[in-house]
Amino acid sequence: MDSTTIAYIAGFLDGDGSIFFQIVPRKDYKQKFQIRSSIAFYQKSEFDNILEWLKSIFGVGYIRRRKTGMSDYTIVESKEVYKILTLLQPYVKLKKKQVELGLNILNKLENKKSDKDFLEICNLVDNFKELNYSKKRTITSEVVSKSLPL
Amino acid sequence: MDSTTIAYIAGFLDGDGSIFFQIVPRKDYKQKFQIRSSIAFYQKSEFDNILEWLKSIFGVGYIRRRKTGMSDYTIVESKEVYKILTLLQPYVKLKKKQVELGLNILNKLENKKSDKDFLEICNLVDNFKELNYSKKRTITSEVVSKSLPL
Repeated sequence: MDSTTIAYIAGFLDGDGSIFFQIVPRKDYKQKFQIRSSIAFYQKSEFDNILEWLKSIFGVGYIRRRKTGMSDYTIVESKEVYKILTLLQPYVKLKKKQVELGLNILNKLENKKSDKDFLEICNLVDNFKELNYSKKRTITSEVVSKSLPL
Repeated sequence: MDSTTIAYIAGFLDGDGSIFFQIVPRKDYKQKFQIRSSIAFYQKSEFDNILEWLKSIFGVGYIRRRKTGMSDYTIVESKEVYKILTLLQPYVKLKKKQVELGLNILNKLENKKSDKDFLEICNLVDNFKELNYSKKRTITSEVVSKSLPL
């Protein structure tokens, strides 16, 4: 992929995109929770061929057309999120900290061995939310820690 | 300037920036109106060092910190807007039509010889507003035409 294409996407992500992590309940998971990573790009549905273009570049993820007239293109698969963050890292400016911490979280997830490791990653997800100034009520590491036999 | 820097800025402009033209009343102007071109970038004031960075790149324009918690970096000088649009043109995607028409307007402004020429440019400004889906009440070419002795 051409470096100016990657730089363009980094600028577009900084301008109107989002990187976020969520702790999601999963009854069938060993730690009862999953960490979900997401990269999302937004655009008014009437101009969302830019999202189709992005999807054709990355070859993964899905586009949703909301009833609000907005569309979003979201990639959630951890390995793909890791690849894309690595690609964009040299060019991203506003979201530099998010990319760095995001890669750190995904690396640790790949190598986690214990409940303790998992809880440490949940802590990093809490930190990530602070970077995004997220005020949504979501599952924090505290919730996870109460459900783990530590 | 590095091509990836230009591509990044094109992506940032596509994501969260704006190009617009306004017809502004000017008593002391021959045609009683001026055509003002603007490129604007927006960001929450707490993260507006990205706007400082952009200003350091272009070396022109000004940053305003609004009471709303938002900042904007705006370039209005026609020659500078022309230079920046020319620079970004190869990389912009969403605002491709705006950049093309904007350069066309600025070219015609530079070469205008008559009131008729000026009115033709005002028509192009009307077209530009349609590209931006601007619904603001602003001065149209019709207003200008009523004030010119054509």
